[in-house]
Amino acid sequence: MSTKIDETTTPAGATPADLGIGMRFSIHPHTDGFVEVILGALADAEAAGLTDGLVIETDEVSTYVGARTAPAEQRLAAYLSAVVAAASLRSGGGHVVAHVLLSRGCPGEVACDLTVTGLPSPAPVAIEPTGIHAAAHWSLYPLLDGGSDAGDHMAHIEGAIAAATARGTAASPAHYATKLTGDVADVLATAVDAWAQVGARVPHVVTHLTLSVGSPSPATN
Amino acid sequence: MSTKIDETTTPAGATPADLGIGMRFSIHPHTDGFVEVILGALADAEAAGLTDGLVIETDEVSTYVGARTAPAEQRLAAYLSAVVAAASLRSGGGHVVAHVLLSRGCPGEVACDLTVTGLPSPAPVAIEPTGIHAAAHWSLYPLLDGGSDAGDHMAHIEGAIAAATARGTAASPAHYATKLTGDVADVLATAVDAWAQVGARVPHVVTHLTLSVGSPSPATN
Repeated sequence: MSTKIDETTTPAGATPADLGIGMRFSIHPHTDGFVEVILGALADAEAAGLTDGLVIETDEVSTYVGARTAPAEQRLAAYLSAVVAAASLRSGGGHVVAHVLLSRGCPGEVACDLTVTGLPSPAPVAIEPTGIHAAAHWSLYPLLDGGSDAGDHMAHIEGAIAAATARGTAASPAHYATKLTGDVADVLATAVDAWAQVGARVPHVVTHLTLSVGSPSPATN
Repeated sequence: MSTKIDETTTPAGATPADLGIGMRFSIHPHTDGFVEVILGALADAEAAGLTDGLVIETDEVSTYVGARTAPAEQRLAAYLSAVVAAASLRSGGGHVVAHVLLSRGCPGEVACDLTVTGLPSPAPVAIEPTGIHAAAHWSLYPLLDGGSDAGDHMAHIEGAIAAATARGTAASPAHYATKLTGDVADVLATAVDAWAQVGARVPHVVTHLTLSVGSPSPATN
């Protein structure tokens, strides 16, 4: 798995399907009625037309969402924001947590056989505010290979945290994660944009987000 | 952040504190009584003496657990297994999901300034079976730097999946994750051992696990 990127030329336009752009997520309403909340929220997002261009497969642990066509990041972020907002509404503003893994660069299930000649630089996502406040722990993993010229993995992470700080969503550092706060839409957009931007330079990039709304715990920094 | 490892000599013995070995986890009982279940499960693990040697800090999103002294991996795995089992029991066998991030190699909160001259090779963890069946999605991230001689990140991942297959916990590949099934203790041990073993060769390694017990969804492969 090696990818030479010539930034002086127009990216050759690897498609979302070529890159295996997608996510896994699980959503956890902390209520006896969790099954109805989850199924209802997924149905709400579908009824709103937000599953267009997405391949969705749910199993007993989480839900896979693949974006086969551009704008892949926009489709994923808009769908996820809608599902979280719907679950929050359907649980009456109760405590709901979503865990999200966004991945690009490993289109297969086990091995990466990615050979692309250019990586796309997608536009930042634009998602309607939900009006729901979230707190999240966010981690970003640029998966470099030794011997490539892609550089220092921590430099990519530090750049992403600086961008989140400038955006106003980065609240504080934590061990192994950065705490993000803000509207559900802004928090998700922060993670999605960082992942996509690092993905313009590093072929295989994963980001994880644990996003909490309606927590009864007191807010902390 | 570069670490030269001479495998022909005894590791110089970087301590768990030097390496920042620890985890963040969140636990999600899908019940109206989630606060009592979570607080009770944490109290049960503490009463069982499983917090010895650990630093535990809970905030509104997740709980940080740092292991400052050896056997760090054993302490983390035993504590987590006990918390999940206690939450399952306290919710009457209901649906409980834990999300876990295990990290080593970035002892600070934001930047890695790790300079060690040798990485430890910890023994596999040994945890009492819980009697509770789990299904999980597991991902492993060896965070190499370009220019190091540490090799191919996918080779480390493929080696870990092969070890899980040999152990009998790897059920099937999924997009961006490997599905693990088995007793809660075996599933956690699979992820912890893989993370520690890659950590004997790569300084900065993170693994994520979404672990589900008592799901009402039909089991899938």
